[in-house]
Amino acid sequence: MASFREFRGNDGFGGEAWKALCRVRESAPLIQCITNFVSMDIMANTLLAAGASPAMVHAVEEIAEFTALSNALCVNVGTLSAEWVFAMKVAAYRANELNKPWVLDPVGVGDTKFRTESCLELIALRPAVIRGNASDIVAAIRASSALPPKGVDGTIPAIDALEAAKELARVSQSIVAVTGVVDLVTDGKRVLGVSNGVALMQQITATGCAVTALIAAFVAVHPAHSLEAAAFALALFGLAGEIGMEKSNGPGSLRVHLLDALHSLDELVAGSLWAMAL
Amino acid sequence: MASFREFRGNDGFGGEAWKALCRVRESAPLIQCITNFVSMDIMANTLLAAGASPAMVHAVEEIAEFTALSNALCVNVGTLSAEWVFAMKVAAYRANELNKPWVLDPVGVGDTKFRTESCLELIALRPAVIRGNASDIVAAIRASSALPPKGVDGTIPAIDALEAAKELARVSQSIVAVTGVVDLVTDGKRVLGVSNGVALMQQITATGCAVTALIAAFVAVHPAHSLEAAAFALALFGLAGEIGMEKSNGPGSLRVHLLDALHSLDELVAGSLWAMAL
Amino acid sequence: MASFREFRGNDGFGGEAWKALCRVRESAPLIQCITNFVSMDIMANTLLAAGASPAMVHAVEEIAEFTALSNALCVNVGTLSAEWVFAMKVAAYRANELNKPWVLDPVGVGDTKFRTESCLELIALRPAVIRGNASDIVAAIRASSALPPKGVDGTIPAIDALEAAKELARVSQSIVAVTGVVDLVTDGKRVLGVSNGVALMQQITATGCAVTALIAAFVAVHPAHSLEAAAFALALFGLAGEIGMEKSNGPGSLRVHLLDALHSLDELVAGSLWAMAL
Repeated sequence: MASFREFRGNDGFGGEAWKALCRVRESAPLIQCITNFVSMDIMANTLLAAGASPAMVHAVEEIAEFTALSNALCVNVGTLSAEWVFAMKVAAYRANELNKPWVLDPVGVGDTKFRTESCLELIALRPAVIRGNASDIVAAIRASSALPPKGVDGTIPAIDALEAAKELARVSQSIVAVTGVVDLVTDGKRVLGVSNGVALMQQITATGCAVTALIAAFVAVHPAHSLEAAAFALALFGLAGEIGMEKSNGPGSLRVHLLDALHSLDELVAGSLWAMAL
Repeated sequence: MASFREFRGNDGFGGEAWKALCRVRESAPLIQCITNFVSMDIMANTLLAAGASPAMVHAVEEIAEFTALSNALCVNVGTLSAEWVFAMKVAAYRANELNKPWVLDPVGVGDTKFRTESCLELIALRPAVIRGNASDIVAAIRASSALPPKGVDGTIPAIDALEAAKELARVSQSIVAVTGVVDLVTDGKRVLGVSNGVALMQQITATGCAVTALIAAFVAVHPAHSLEAAAFALALFGLAGEIGMEKSNGPGSLRVHLLDALHSLDELVAGSLWAMAL
Repeated sequence: MASFREFRGNDGFGGEAWKALCRVRESAPLIQCITNFVSMDIMANTLLAAGASPAMVHAVEEIAEFTALSNALCVNVGTLSAEWVFAMKVAAYRANELNKPWVLDPVGVGDTKFRTESCLELIALRPAVIRGNASDIVAAIRASSALPPKGVDGTIPAIDALEAAKELARVSQSIVAVTGVVDLVTDGKRVLGVSNGVALMQQITATGCAVTALIAAFVAVHPAHSLEAAAFALALFGLAGEIGMEKSNGPGSLRVHLLDALHSLDELVAGSLWAMAL
């Protein structure tokens, strides 16, 4: 860990991303996932392809013990219910107590009052990283700021995704990753941008959920550098998508080849990754 | 919508199916799915491959709001529980209140008293379309008609699937789709038959569930023509299976290539589809 | 059934495994699965590829009736909750009452008190077969024997997986299958070993869960010979992995080709299987 450098730009990003992936493969961090039902298969397979160990455990009866065994926690509210949100909060609380990092994917925050309130309660428990697409991150900062979610006429004034991410990072004191054509990661001041992946990945369900779990795996091996860890995970997952795309004819085959490519990433390709300091 | 013709046979079916698919791709209808756990991955990926937007949302706390955001609702009782059936009924009721179409997949109706009663309660909430295989549709009309489910000797007298579908359509006032070697769609009077797909699709879990969700997406863009919309979805999904089969060596690869083919359907192949008026 | 021979070694194992697979394909046993959310897709697809009929049914309201319809039951505690464990116990009790075989996959037994106690309560209901990896089987016999799960210093003294399996078989009166590089199946006295599969199968989530369900399908058609049935399922699934591996570039494609290969197994390849009597 001592040799880890904070990035102020492109310099050495690919090499450090590769070293972080090696660390995941070597230490096989146990990632406890409390996630939506749709994502479970691809999330577990993504973690395995990267060398991590997934464990989907949500029963409140065992969270206190299980979270203690795990190296990081991934919480995703996609198919939330009152019972599962309670389990998520118990696990997040326990992770904090044990000084283990946890990441949050606030799927659909802003869509319903129940979902928004659940996400705000989770954000208040200080995740190391919050990952969402632009609309989720904008909705999260609106809700956090008690701004009205929509104008009276139903329209949403344009808010720049990056500004929303920076503001959410400041308010929540979490690293915030907003994913899209360019993925941005920020602590509210510094911003790293990575630009990997292919558009077709969005036609595969739960790729966003899967990369959030991958972020948890990288934060597990680099807990003191969550910003960089999140950027590594986003860049490597996007790179796997690019490589997988070469063999793919659509979203069905891309899902297959993306996992193969993630499993096969080597120093040559990972080392070519770069990031922008914004 | 003004240009939509009701089909009385083969005439123009492929061209209209293609136009309907374009409409799904352009409008990306949000399909709320309350479905069984086994089907969630393939259902979401099927909707995405066709251009629709899936959302698996079942918490009663948010259904009133979320169903209002969605364009159609898909209810599937595969892994039902008392809690989920309650959510299904709340969502169906809300969809009706908002004049949004919803479709029902009564998996295993007739297998147990709980399942049968749950399905009958859902059918009473007037789905736009009910989709099942022959045994489900026969079981549904038996249960609806309060006919004894089985003879004292355990045998089921043969009932023609088409007659069962027509009778169920009349009793329920829903469009009924019965899928098999030939897929039949009926409102109780008119019957459209499409004959696409390959037998191996039945060796992939939840393809039937997935096509029910696809029906919901097509009904979302053609709410006034549920019969034709259901036939389009069945024909296009079957066609994707036929195209995918060319590259496949078994059910594992067919699942992959079916999704690729659904994503890649073009006017030339879709336009060649035809239907029978029975 | 009359022609079934108990194996005392390699003699004829492949031919009998092939005959057992044919019996599964011909009778298409209905396998009720109460299993973790992560495994549902691949478990259902594995059963279908082998010719069996999966049904994921967990609602207590319908278990009494549904277990009566099924030919065997598969219980897997992966994503357990208090409610689901209750359903598992009701179903196991019902299966016993009806003299139908059931199999148990005690995922993560020993990890938490809740999980361990749930597994012990299920083992007390006398599954026909218990399937786990070495650490699960060692943890199960430790818990069954009321041995302390760990030393004061947190280390686990080495216990031979085979000895643990034999001891667990004697204590539980179940057949115990411990899977790894070599899969061992024992009734506490006899031991059969099969050595198929490839290491990459462990990088696909829920392959272990899937093969437990496959064991249930084989026990369903050979209820009086659970030891051999379990060995057949393990050998055939491993063989499918070996064949699938030839076309695969990673865990994504292996999952696809494994299912294709399982679906396509023929007498020539299955007949070449062999087992060791240990």
